[in-house]
Amino acid sequence: MAGNSIGTLFKVTTFGESHGLALGCIVDGVPPGLDLCEDDLQKDLDRRKPGSSRYTTQRREADAVKILSGVFEGKTTGTSIGLMIENTDQRSQDYSRIKEIFRPSHADYTYQQKYGIRDYRGGGRASARETAMRVAAGSIAKKYLHDHLGITIRGYLAQMGEVACPLQDWQQVGQNPFFCGDESKLDDLEQLLRSLKKSGDSIGAKVTIVAENVPVGLGEPVFDRLDADIAHALMSINAVKGVEIGDGFAAVSKRGSENRDEITSAGFRSNHAGGILGGISSGQTITANIALKATPSIEIAGQSIDIHGQTVEVSTHGRHDPCVGIRAVPIAEAMMAIVLMDHYLRYRAQCGDVQPKRYF
Amino acid sequence: MAGNSIGTLFKVTTFGESHGLALGCIVDGVPPGLDLCEDDLQKDLDRRKPGSSRYTTQRREADAVKILSGVFEGKTTGTSIGLMIENTDQRSQDYSRIKEIFRPSHADYTYQQKYGIRDYRGGGRASARETAMRVAAGSIAKKYLHDHLGITIRGYLAQMGEVACPLQDWQQVGQNPFFCGDESKLDDLEQLLRSLKKSGDSIGAKVTIVAENVPVGLGEPVFDRLDADIAHALMSINAVKGVEIGDGFAAVSKRGSENRDEITSAGFRSNHAGGILGGISSGQTITANIALKATPSIEIAGQSIDIHGQTVEVSTHGRHDPCVGIRAVPIAEAMMAIVLMDHYLRYRAQCGDVQPKRYF
Amino acid sequence: MAGNSIGTLFKVTTFGESHGLALGCIVDGVPPGLDLCEDDLQKDLDRRKPGSSRYTTQRREADAVKILSGVFEGKTTGTSIGLMIENTDQRSQDYSRIKEIFRPSHADYTYQQKYGIRDYRGGGRASARETAMRVAAGSIAKKYLHDHLGITIRGYLAQMGEVACPLQDWQQVGQNPFFCGDESKLDDLEQLLRSLKKSGDSIGAKVTIVAENVPVGLGEPVFDRLDADIAHALMSINAVKGVEIGDGFAAVSKRGSENRDEITSAGFRSNHAGGILGGISSGQTITANIALKATPSIEIAGQSIDIHGQTVEVSTHGRHDPCVGIRAVPIAEAMMAIVLMDHYLRYRAQCGDVQPKRYF
Amino acid sequence: MAGNSIGTLFKVTTFGESHGLALGCIVDGVPPGLDLCEDDLQKDLDRRKPGSSRYTTQRREADAVKILSGVFEGKTTGTSIGLMIENTDQRSQDYSRIKEIFRPSHADYTYQQKYGIRDYRGGGRASARETAMRVAAGSIAKKYLHDHLGITIRGYLAQMGEVACPLQDWQQVGQNPFFCGDESKLDDLEQLLRSLKKSGDSIGAKVTIVAENVPVGLGEPVFDRLDADIAHALMSINAVKGVEIGDGFAAVSKRGSENRDEITSAGFRSNHAGGILGGISSGQTITANIALKATPSIEIAGQSIDIHGQTVEVSTHGRHDPCVGIRAVPIAEAMMAIVLMDHYLRYRAQCGDVQPKRYF
Repeated sequence: MAGNSIGTLFKVTTFGESHGLALGCIVDGVPPGLDLCEDDLQKDLDRRKPGSSRYTTQRREADAVKILSGVFEGKTTGTSIGLMIENTDQRSQDYSRIKEIFRPSHADYTYQQKYGIRDYRGGGRASARETAMRVAAGSIAKKYLHDHLGITIRGYLAQMGEVACPLQDWQQVGQNPFFCGDESKLDDLEQLLRSLKKSGDSIGAKVTIVAENVPVGLGEPVFDRLDADIAHALMSINAVKGVEIGDGFAAVSKRGSENRDEITSAGFRSNHAGGILGGISSGQTITANIALKATPSIEIAGQSIDIHGQTVEVSTHGRHDPCVGIRAVPIAEAMMAIVLMDHYLRYRAQCGDVQPKRYF
Repeated sequence: MAGNSIGTLFKVTTFGESHGLALGCIVDGVPPGLDLCEDDLQKDLDRRKPGSSRYTTQRREADAVKILSGVFEGKTTGTSIGLMIENTDQRSQDYSRIKEIFRPSHADYTYQQKYGIRDYRGGGRASARETAMRVAAGSIAKKYLHDHLGITIRGYLAQMGEVACPLQDWQQVGQNPFFCGDESKLDDLEQLLRSLKKSGDSIGAKVTIVAENVPVGLGEPVFDRLDADIAHALMSINAVKGVEIGDGFAAVSKRGSENRDEITSAGFRSNHAGGILGGISSGQTITANIALKATPSIEIAGQSIDIHGQTVEVSTHGRHDPCVGIRAVPIAEAMMAIVLMDHYLRYRAQCGDVQPKRYF
Repeated sequence: MAGNSIGTLFKVTTFGESHGLALGCIVDGVPPGLDLCEDDLQKDLDRRKPGSSRYTTQRREADAVKILSGVFEGKTTGTSIGLMIENTDQRSQDYSRIKEIFRPSHADYTYQQKYGIRDYRGGGRASARETAMRVAAGSIAKKYLHDHLGITIRGYLAQMGEVACPLQDWQQVGQNPFFCGDESKLDDLEQLLRSLKKSGDSIGAKVTIVAENVPVGLGEPVFDRLDADIAHALMSINAVKGVEIGDGFAAVSKRGSENRDEITSAGFRSNHAGGILGGISSGQTITANIALKATPSIEIAGQSIDIHGQTVEVSTHGRHDPCVGIRAVPIAEAMMAIVLMDHYLRYRAQCGDVQPKRYF
Repeated sequence: MAGNSIGTLFKVTTFGESHGLALGCIVDGVPPGLDLCEDDLQKDLDRRKPGSSRYTTQRREADAVKILSGVFEGKTTGTSIGLMIENTDQRSQDYSRIKEIFRPSHADYTYQQKYGIRDYRGGGRASARETAMRVAAGSIAKKYLHDHLGITIRGYLAQMGEVACPLQDWQQVGQNPFFCGDESKLDDLEQLLRSLKKSGDSIGAKVTIVAENVPVGLGEPVFDRLDADIAHALMSINAVKGVEIGDGFAAVSKRGSENRDEITSAGFRSNHAGGILGGISSGQTITANIALKATPSIEIAGQSIDIHGQTVEVSTHGRHDPCVGIRAVPIAEAMMAIVLMDHYLRYRAQCGDVQPKRYF
């Protein structure tokens, strides 16, 4: 079944393979009257872009996005917005080997088994290249949320391998190629990546996403809770294996008396919940963590089978990130923005005329 | 917007408040010809039922489910199945106090702010009582998956507070009130709960869900990945703050060479991925963990505000679980079943005539 | 796949067979704060109720609807509303004959072929009895649209057989058992029905639905146009074979110069379009017609086959309407209300902050 | 809310304005392994293409469609298919007049009022040019239905103005610019169009769509009936004001004894129902009629208002069809194909393992 859409009112539908002619998406449900131009999208795309540091894949794509519809004289019209990025760097590689092999821990095996056919060039639809359109679409949501509601959504690398990088300074995040908010950890990160390059290995990462200024009331009871939809959106990013809201797994060993967020007339006294209560935003800052596995595309040879079932040795050379978590930051921001935008529209639909009371 | 449905082809829609007349749900999309009777649902409902051990809430409900439609002469007909559980234990409590208070870390505040009105009796729609219908609906999915595909879905308590309970024996799980698969930890668990009762506190938990015999090919690329939908379904359970697939957050500090799952002609050599590659089931066992926070309904007094913004002291007496994680086991199984059933139908729709190759 | 839901933001999901335990539905997405009680629903249910005149089926059901959730202290809470009508008149008929026969022009054949099983008692899920829940759910929409937006939705019998009954007087519609708005046609209708009773035959009908005071702007471009959604909703009613918006099929032989609706500063000069332009409501009155076929449940014997493929003779005796179109009026009103309510919420979501200009 | 998608399992989402850079769509849910190339789509696009006869609009577009993804080595891969047609004939017209005017019976007024902004160039999103992507997407459905199930979907002009053209010969339909299946009516049609050209007027039309070889069992009970979804799809086409299934409005004056379709062991004896019973395909030929209004873009001056509310005179000169119904044939075929494809996948999902019995 159709699985290439996300959102209900703010709906993003994507297409495109790693080495096809183009990537594209349709963003439907954008309110009319939003100022929007290609530069608004390009900024985030450039942050995600491969080749933006020497530690990310060296594939060189301009990743220049075009707005094909839905914007007129600099403003959104309320009709569906078509976006496209042409694939310019489709090196005519020799795929004769990869064509018949299931790279371990890639989607090669599952795509082939499910569909009986797969576009093996660069991972086809399963390539992380697909996430470019998420970033482009997410930028529209981000801009609306910022311009109309004052919401800020941003993320940082919280950990790479054993190197934890707790946020010290948001300014710092934008000033290094790791999205790291702790300047004192930059050397450790560089050193880790260097050693991975040398050994031909890769490493996992943790990324934290923070949404500030989110109004109270976003999210639906029961199944379409805000946290559930955030979990869905973040887990849908390539390589993500875990999602936490607020304290996440740390809550397992906490008592109710430690873990609850007391309220006083001055506001909440803590935010263990990560800004969501009963599936609905509380007005506090929303925080989420994601765990990304190390890419299996490494030089160290490993065993796998080919499409005939024969055991083969596989190792990956060429342009690949030793840590895919680095580039996940703008992608995860985009997913958070898409979910919040969708829930904001849902909120308007059902509760648009309810006036929340201002307590703090 | 409507948020009380889950699933696309196998779709569950629920209603019901903690202290209303009844809870109910509609299960739509069930294939015809499945043997089904109320006992099939009741078994799992009884596992979830409050009052099933002295460590869970003492509310006493028969929780007797009725099938109102969609089953004829013992078989499903393909039409929508209506289920209902009447609320029989609606103690006419005195709600005069809770009525005006936002219990900390409950949904009282967010519901009131979002809707401008809330059914304050027992938490209303936000009560964990709502999960009864998830279990009932999930039982139908579970039965279909088991009878037609041989899939087994089961869960266990993996940790309570600091007490880790790694699975030793599935048999054991059904023989104690904690869903604990390690007999040697039963004393520790009892002791922890006793001490919590004494101090009027509560504790978090981790639950693991395992689905065996899942065929290769379930799950859609990009947004409706199987892992993303599992994350959504599990995060939608009350009190859940984190979801992991396979290694989850442990993947953050692992290298690609450790974390990848090599394949040989004898099969996969490991299962760090938790049975899902590129969002599609690989044929390996699917594993997921969830983190549940401690319930904030505790006797230890805490601060909050009332609906007028005045600071108040809140403490909860009466029937409440010190560890809600215990009862989350059958609920999480149900959610896993609903997701797998939905994706099985989606698989049949698009790829029903593709023959996966048998490699192992 | 799940086909028992309608609407996206205002979503109605139903269950129930003609001779099962109960009919029910879940209405999701209702804005909070709407005054609502069972009487609000019962009024329309009573208009649809079998046995309300001597010309409709003599099945006697109280059709007493219960609100099971989503309403608290007389107001909707924003959570899903569960409704139920118990089937009290399940005569323990002898179904031995009908059980093995495909009644001509009924759904017996298609249900059996599609599902391999069917609840043959009284048509099961395909019975017009299913429409009771549409009426109940539609009443909620109707009430909201009326109370909050001043929209009025009402219908009348426009034609029965060859007897055309153009609307003369809305008052009259509620004063006869035919929903006929032309007092001078009552005798003709009575006579037609009498002759049908005598000959054991049945007759088709045309019903007109009118929605007044609908604001400009409801409806989405391209696929989810307001007229397309109305067509969907009305065509989903049992026995409906045609839907017209505005001039409908009369437009085929009209010229552009006759058919266009000119505008002046005093307003639209005509309403050939039926209140919808480009799929979006224009602020004019919305009009739709539906054609209902004669019920095939007649006494005059006809040929069919049984489940073994043998030719059999079929004739229907007992309680059946000679003209199902009569009871279709409140059902069609309900469907129109559901569609308008859904589109009103969709409108609020995307364009809630756009101020249409007041031209007339 | 997002309204630019149709279908659930076979899902088509479109974008594009009349005078924007490009039109495009994403077709999601296509089963893998279907042979597909651009020529398969181009054939139908050429039938719809403006300028294909002297009686349709003289806009000259190559309408060359590109497949951007989802097809690999000539076969569909199961991933989403991106399609695009670049707008090459965007004459830099002078829009200064149309910019401020609401053309009567166009969507100008409703778009402006709903969104507060509109792309006025050539009707923007409301232009019939949007239907090009419907045709492209529908061709994929058509091809699958034909290649895998032997289903044929085709249409013809049944009436133009007062000139009825009952089908005599399918061969003839493809041999004249009117899609007329009655050679003897060609002169009348030519003459009618000539006179309309002369008087600067336009005319309505009726189109009939026929689907042969549809298997029994497609369609869902209650809301997502096959006829309801066909009505939705056909009514969503620009200018359509009515939809009939089978006998349609002729059923109003028919008796049950005339209207029912008797069955014998040799098959159905008639097809008044148009191939659908209880919302589910019966295995008979599916027939549907649509009524299309005359285009309001005519030379004969009419009254309207401008965006300031001032009364103005409007007349349209230039390239416009005197009868838009002519080009509606391939569009309506496409919509029928999309609905049948969607329901075929839905059927496979829920009832794929039920074996219908072969009676005839």
